[in-house]
Amino acid sequence: MPSLHLPSRAFQAYNVFAANTNVGKTIFATGLCRAAALQAQQNNKRVFYLKPVQTGYPVDSDARHVDNFTKGVSTTTLYAYKDPVSPHVATLEAPRDEEILEKVRKHMLGCVEDGKQVNGSYMFLETAGGVHSPAMSGTSQSELYRSLRLPTVLIGDSKLGGISTTVTSYESLQMRGYDIPEVLLFNDKAWNNHEYLAKRFNNEADVSTIPLPPMQLEDPVKELESMKKYYEQVDEHLHPVMERLDRKHQERFERLETMAQKSRDVFWWPFTQHDMVKEVTVIDSAYNDHMYTYAPEAPGKKELQPKEMFDACASWWTQGLGHANPKLTLAAAYAAGRYGHVMFPEATNEPALKLAEAMLEQNDWAQRVFFSDNGSTAMEVAIKMAIRSTTIRYGWDDKLKPEIIGLNGSYHGDTIGAMDACAPNVYNGQVQWYQPRGHWYDPPTVQTRRGKVVVTIPDEIKSKQDSVSYESMGSLFDPERLANDELKDVYERFIRQSLEGLSSQGRKFGAVLMEPVLMGSGGMVVSDPLFQKALVDVVRKDGADLLGNGTQGSSGEWQGLPIVIDEVFAGMYRLGRSRASSYLGVTPDIAAFAKVLTGGLIPLALTVTTNSIFNNFLSDNKADCLLHGHSYTAHPMGCAVAKASIDILEQLNTDGSWSHYKQDWGVKANENIWSMWNKNTVDFLSHLPNVQGVNAIGSVLAVELKDAEGKGYTSAASANIVAKMRNHQFEHTNINMFARPLGNVVYVMASQRTQPEQIKVLEQTLLQCLEEEL
Amino acid sequence: MPSLHLPSRAFQAYNVFAANTNVGKTIFATGLCRAAALQAQQNNKRVFYLKPVQTGYPVDSDARHVDNFTKGVSTTTLYAYKDPVSPHVATLEAPRDEEILEKVRKHMLGCVEDGKQVNGSYMFLETAGGVHSPAMSGTSQSELYRSLRLPTVLIGDSKLGGISTTVTSYESLQMRGYDIPEVLLFNDKAWNNHEYLAKRFNNEADVSTIPLPPMQLEDPVKELESMKKYYEQVDEHLHPVMERLDRKHQERFERLETMAQKSRDVFWWPFTQHDMVKEVTVIDSAYNDHMYTYAPEAPGKKELQPKEMFDACASWWTQGLGHANPKLTLAAAYAAGRYGHVMFPEATNEPALKLAEAMLEQNDWAQRVFFSDNGSTAMEVAIKMAIRSTTIRYGWDDKLKPEIIGLNGSYHGDTIGAMDACAPNVYNGQVQWYQPRGHWYDPPTVQTRRGKVVVTIPDEIKSKQDSVSYESMGSLFDPERLANDELKDVYERFIRQSLEGLSSQGRKFGAVLMEPVLMGSGGMVVSDPLFQKALVDVVRKDGADLLGNGTQGSSGEWQGLPIVIDEVFAGMYRLGRSRASSYLGVTPDIAAFAKVLTGGLIPLALTVTTNSIFNNFLSDNKADCLLHGHSYTAHPMGCAVAKASIDILEQLNTDGSWSHYKQDWGVKANENIWSMWNKNTVDFLSHLPNVQGVNAIGSVLAVELKDAEGKGYTSAASANIVAKMRNHQFEHTNINMFARPLGNVVYVMASQRTQPEQIKVLEQTLLQCLEEEL
Repeated sequence: MPSLHLPSRAFQAYNVFAANTNVGKTIFATGLCRAAALQAQQNNKRVFYLKPVQTGYPVDSDARHVDNFTKGVSTTTLYAYKDPVSPHVATLEAPRDEEILEKVRKHMLGCVEDGKQVNGSYMFLETAGGVHSPAMSGTSQSELYRSLRLPTVLIGDSKLGGISTTVTSYESLQMRGYDIPEVLLFNDKAWNNHEYLAKRFNNEADVSTIPLPPMQLEDPVKELESMKKYYEQVDEHLHPVMERLDRKHQERFERLETMAQKSRDVFWWPFTQHDMVKEVTVIDSAYNDHMYTYAPEAPGKKELQPKEMFDACASWWTQGLGHANPKLTLAAAYAAGRYGHVMFPEATNEPALKLAEAMLEQNDWAQRVFFSDNGSTAMEVAIKMAIRSTTIRYGWDDKLKPEIIGLNGSYHGDTIGAMDACAPNVYNGQVQWYQPRGHWYDPPTVQTRRGKVVVTIPDEIKSKQDSVSYESMGSLFDPERLANDELKDVYERFIRQSLEGLSSQGRKFGAVLMEPVLMGSGGMVVSDPLFQKALVDVVRKDGADLLGNGTQGSSGEWQGLPIVIDEVFAGMYRLGRSRASSYLGVTPDIAAFAKVLTGGLIPLALTVTTNSIFNNFLSDNKADCLLHGHSYTAHPMGCAVAKASIDILEQLNTDGSWSHYKQDWGVKANENIWSMWNKNTVDFLSHLPNVQGVNAIGSVLAVELKDAEGKGYTSAASANIVAKMRNHQFEHTNINMFARPLGNVVYVMASQRTQPEQIKVLEQTLLQCLEEEL
Repeated sequence: MPSLHLPSRAFQAYNVFAANTNVGKTIFATGLCRAAALQAQQNNKRVFYLKPVQTGYPVDSDARHVDNFTKGVSTTTLYAYKDPVSPHVATLEAPRDEEILEKVRKHMLGCVEDGKQVNGSYMFLETAGGVHSPAMSGTSQSELYRSLRLPTVLIGDSKLGGISTTVTSYESLQMRGYDIPEVLLFNDKAWNNHEYLAKRFNNEADVSTIPLPPMQLEDPVKELESMKKYYEQVDEHLHPVMERLDRKHQERFERLETMAQKSRDVFWWPFTQHDMVKEVTVIDSAYNDHMYTYAPEAPGKKELQPKEMFDACASWWTQGLGHANPKLTLAAAYAAGRYGHVMFPEATNEPALKLAEAMLEQNDWAQRVFFSDNGSTAMEVAIKMAIRSTTIRYGWDDKLKPEIIGLNGSYHGDTIGAMDACAPNVYNGQVQWYQPRGHWYDPPTVQTRRGKVVVTIPDEIKSKQDSVSYESMGSLFDPERLANDELKDVYERFIRQSLEGLSSQGRKFGAVLMEPVLMGSGGMVVSDPLFQKALVDVVRKDGADLLGNGTQGSSGEWQGLPIVIDEVFAGMYRLGRSRASSYLGVTPDIAAFAKVLTGGLIPLALTVTTNSIFNNFLSDNKADCLLHGHSYTAHPMGCAVAKASIDILEQLNTDGSWSHYKQDWGVKANENIWSMWNKNTVDFLSHLPNVQGVNAIGSVLAVELKDAEGKGYTSAASANIVAKMRNHQFEHTNINMFARPLGNVVYVMASQRTQPEQIKVLEQTLLQCLEEEL
């Protein structure tokens, strides 16, 4: 079932929005239907008029009016109510938004399917009232219909004051991503609003007029005659408009059809082997969890097929609140309008300060916030902060390059300094300046295999068992286990011995770096939280001695080595908590945040730390300060959006939205680990013969495929599954899944607002595609 | 002359905007004046009502209405016109926006100065029509008054359809950075719009009502009586509103007063020695070239003084189009509303593609565009591109770390890889992981000294002269000189010998890196374009041989070494051209853009290059691709804003806006170097006894102070001048200069939209402050 409710070359559909009530919306819609019908006759198309919600019925019926004055136009009203008032107060038994939308989509599907015999169809959807007039549910018109992503004909207001309402309506529509090819209004010589508007919208929308309608006549027969004559006059004004709409529509699809090839020609995509790109996804728009895309109907074909795709890679792990969230847009627009970007050093602005205050409220262990642009820069800043602190405390020579202690499989970003903090891997293998600066432990890893949660312990740890099984993920994170499990002694002993060994080789370390719980780019690997906690505990308790540095920090200062936690991927509620390290029972000395921090809208990153780190950079010499800072540091738009995102996430966390996901995973409810995925699906997946193991945690569901050749990231195994998912439609939906390959790991990722029923669809699609590969 | 037209604790001023005409704006303004007058009596304040532009006068006079129904309110109309129509068509002799604003500012200044005997004042500025109704010039009301940055009382529309017009008006105001503490409308029981709006604006604005006014009576005496009674009724509704406004105003100033200290407590500012911060600038908003700031009236004092400051550091060199440019805001809001951020690898979206196409049109030497977040990441990407290309062409071992050839004084960003590409300097001196990877030449530098343009030639170049003088900057960039000057032979001979010497030491080089013409962070140093061109020419012609690599590139491929041009600071018309390297007559192999690229709004950076570089990364192995890419890569908001910025810059370049700045600097007009600064000012500055030399190029005016102790960046010399400029007001203006120190260099920087008269003020302020230091 293709998503044929989306516009296509053959299906030319428009919203008709108005700047206000009583600006003649139905008259214009009628005129447009007439003009379309004339075109349709010539090119063998059909014309549909849709009024989703009609109030004041049957006295008022816009569809009947259209019927009366058009020929060959199929008119439909979906909901009709007697009360002649604003729809949101018209009835108490209002249908839900989703219900209305579902009916509209079905109707649109009909417009296309019925049109199989013909060349295609035109459709005009007449909204109610002005662009922000409430629908039955209270949702505004422009919010209600935005997921249809139809271009809009805006009916302007020709009366005194109409310039203002037309322009404000235009802006509100633009803020919601509506394209507005045409603005139409009456030619009211008293005000000539259209002249001003034509200048104002120059290069954006064309502005056209029709004559004012005649006075209404009491005699219905005469009135009908008078209106018929009027519409004949209107035709000559709207026919050129319709021709222009036709042309713009064709141009739009010509562009869409060429975008894939043009993009191949001019982009240098990140992380992409261009010679291996099979299909380029043209993303025409996005809303909530969905992206509206176009791709050729078949390989080598020019004709495009519209697809509605669930963004199952969360657009590179950035989406937490859905695409084009209106609250975030408004926060961004306000900050842009109030500040643009303003100077930050030695200065302050409200969005930056509010964000810093909110971050420090979430991170009560910290006192300082440093701003940069992405996870990689946030981690470089963290490394600079940490190794300068150790250099100072331990009195090292300035030429010493202290190493870091980390975990194999970790990934801290793409800039060279952040790469240097990771063990040699496929990402840094071809970077000539890469210089590994650290010691990395193979962490014990966690995976659900054949229904059991298995911790695999690397040989070098010399545990009695090479693996331990648990009944549930929750048990792993049980504070009791983290405090007293006998495995902790094993881990701690291993770490102690290892640190002594490293120190005896004369190596000097400046920080511990970790992604808490879940390592993303490394292949969605869950490391045993007990090992992560053990590493922190040993370093803090005895690190100074074990590493041969001696000097202890005073009380309240960092101990052993600064613990740097990379929360870029796992933090900001990806795993259900603002800080994933809280699952380890560990507080960092430095933590980096990005990605979901700004709700999936705009680059911004934060490095949060303590005064114990900060104070090392104080002196009376400017050169001693942290000489790092990007041009758009603490840009108000990013800060305002991040603060709005945090507010929404914190509300979701407390208002019960996530209660379904806070199911008990094996330990007492208030300490559980949070997951959006159904236990039985995970169980089932983990039994598939082509599956090595599964991790389901927070909004991430990752399946490691068996990888006989051991190719890991360079394996094409997941690419096949992902390609299948993009073309697979789960029953009763017309939604495909846009996932991304990660070597031999297939993962799907939800946003923090994805609903349980959608989660099921995600799970089942993945499952079916994996089964097909068997 | 302090900028007392800005709100302060004592001066509580509001815009009264309306969602439409005929929603009772004057009635509400009258009611607010009455309520304020009551408060004013109690707390010894004054109340002002201002109607800047009145049409339909004298029949209509809002000020007279206010007069009739208030006591103790001082009312003023600035412009009155007879025509009873929309202001923009009311008269042909319309005053310019600036004129109206200047009168409004003067009036506001009067509100404060007259109020010296009392505790302060209230002011209500009643706008005309709706929020986007045109002023006389055609500028909309909300655009016209935005630079006043007054909080707004929005009068909503209580009629049918009024919900939509009220919400759209609210959004248009928000997009322009207006704070809207209160929404007021009539209590119209027919529609109860206020109930819906109260829910909608929950947590943002308070919504209150007053009763509908009585029917108008024909008998003027009775009408007066009826309205008097009505206003008595209104009082009980608006008195609580006024109390709330009072409270919000006090809270706002309490916040402003504490922001500086709170910011000191929680921020870790970039490039800032916290112990040396004397004053924290509280930036309350910004518009065009100005920032609206608050700082304590005197050191240690709590009371804040509002200041309007010219942003003379272009907010860290990002501003090209002024703060809060409405076109950029709308572009950002549309992209946010249409996409949010969407997946980029193997995908495409219109803002990203359009931007790439526009960049390639500007850079006809290039075929590929790579997206990242800031100049530093763009340069790391460039380095990765370049050194992999040389490694492949010259068949080097993968373990070899090719060095770069660069210029001393260059700066390519704060991430460690970008730092490694710069010679040891104050910025990387304290970065433990910094590892210099290059050879850097001392370039011949250019400076205006005592009225002459002097090129200083370093000793190692072994020129016959150690300096050469020119009459003008233009002569330096004369294509004739760049092609045939005898100095070029000297430079080329030196470079050849040097490259041979480096090669004989066994050193291997992977790229040439340069900031064209102007090195920013290095101290606003202009290097001799002839030397930069000579370096490129030698490397391209004979680099492969001189460096011992042999293999020549095929025709159309890069030659010798990839030439990487860092246009982050100098590009995007900072020096008047899209690409500053065009002044050198050099085309790059790779170029990086950021800062002004997005018009000073949002982080985004581009690395632009050729297929000759790109093709090195193609293979059938994923690991061979460029494994670099940040989460928000090619985010649609950034791309849309960048494209809008480029459009505006290109228009400014062609529509004559810059003709004043394209004055002849000594060579034929079509080849000249572009400068916003007046030659005689530069001349005068260069003669001051405390000045070492001056550089005036593009929108940058930099003055190097004599630095007896040779402290450079760590010198506090410029900090003193900068502090002076922040408190200095040039005659007849109430604008201060917000510049930033750069060691022993004081610079001021304009935006690409700054007008000649403002340029003069900048120059004179700098001059006066420098003279005071003598």
